Amino acid sequence: LLRVAYDKVTAQRLRNLQRRPDDRIDAQDNPVILAGFGRFGQIIGRLLYANRIGVTVMDHDPDQLDLLRKFGFKVFYGDATRIDLLHAAGAAKARALVVAVDDVEDCLELVDAVRRDFPDLPILARARNVTHYYQLMDRGVTMIERETFESALRLGRQTLQQLGFGAYRARQAAMKFRTHNIKLLHAVYPYYKDQQQMVSMAQQGRDE
Amino acid sequence: LLRVAYDKVTAQRLRNLQRRPDDRIDAQDNPVILAGFGRFGQIIGRLLYANRIGVTVMDHDPDQLDLLRKFGFKVFYGDATRIDLLHAAGAAKARALVVAVDDVEDCLELVDAVRRDFPDLPILARARNVTHYYQLMDRGVTMIERETFESALRLGRQTLQQLGFGAYRARQAAMKFRTHNIKLLHAVYPYYKDQQQMVSMAQQGRDE
Repeated sequence: LLRVAYDKVTAQRLRNLQRRPDDRIDAQDNPVILAGFGRFGQIIGRLLYANRIGVTVMDHDPDQLDLLRKFGFKVFYGDATRIDLLHAAGAAKARALVVAVDDVEDCLELVDAVRRDFPDLPILARARNVTHYYQLMDRGVTMIERETFESALRLGRQTLQQLGFGAYRARQAAMKFRTHNIKLLHAVYPYYKDQQQMVSMAQQGRDE
Repeated sequence: LLRVAYDKVTAQRLRNLQRRPDDRIDAQDNPVILAGFGRFGQIIGRLLYANRIGVTVMDHDPDQLDLLRKFGFKVFYGDATRIDLLHAAGAAKARALVVAVDDVEDCLELVDAVRRDFPDLPILARARNVTHYYQLMDRGVTMIERETFESALRLGRQTLQQLGFGAYRARQAAMKFRTHNIKLLHAVYPYYKDQQQMVSMAQQGRDE
């Protein structure tokens, strides 16, 4: 449904782009690999595209992929945790990998594979929740966004404005909340590790 | 797991609040009703709480509710679409309803019930995706956030910075993208309605 309308609106822009072949970047040298092109990955892909940054997309939904190819993205279909696919997508040369896959286990598996075979490739990741956030921290990932956090904060800002807060004051309140929240997130992290260790020790005890 | 750690960190703050009974607001007069206290609703509830705004929470997870009550939120357990529960929660007096429930159908059912019985209560809503966004627009809701949009945009901003964009330039690019994206969203809305009408007409044709 949306694709039809979207195509209409962006058809002219696409034609303009196609008239300028110099803007196109060779896929092998795309600086960004984007794994997952659902609701989350799409926004990142389009933001990068709008800023003339070459993106190589990996996804396993062939429906999405046709649309993507039409828009000039280089696309790899399949399981992003496959090392041959990561190589083909240019992981050895890329400057960043964005992990925007939906499933937590798929995400962690991909991160583990990349950490092992492409240890120098910076990773940016979508986290489902705080536990997932910590699991990413465990793997050395530092650039993480919780998938619903920022939209919730923004709707909260709108709520404050609805109650009479000025736009500036509401924004300041949200920014202060974010800073405090992330600080707390990192303050709690060691406890999460302790707890993990305790569970692991308890399991060890049971095993013995 | 997190609750234990979180409690430790915030215990002092909680004690401070408890020492100041004047800060507490009577639940019946809470200006905000918040339906749904999952990942999304929690952030909004805590942002409002941090800004001394009384919040009445409706949720159906009794586990969450105990934690909430401990923090001094007024809580109603049950199906938010029940009119008696909405009345008890103070929907007739509230200044805003935030619909942060997870499920799309539950969300639309609640919005329909509120539009019918509390037509003057402003609604702020969490949307799962663009289709859900339009379904909320169909019901006259104007304050809507797509649940993963803002976090995706923020991770995109981080990606731009990782590629060498300055913080200011990356932020400007993201803001420009948001403006354009929302403009496009509203430009496409009539097509979505047309399509709906076409489907409805086609169904009518088949029925006849």
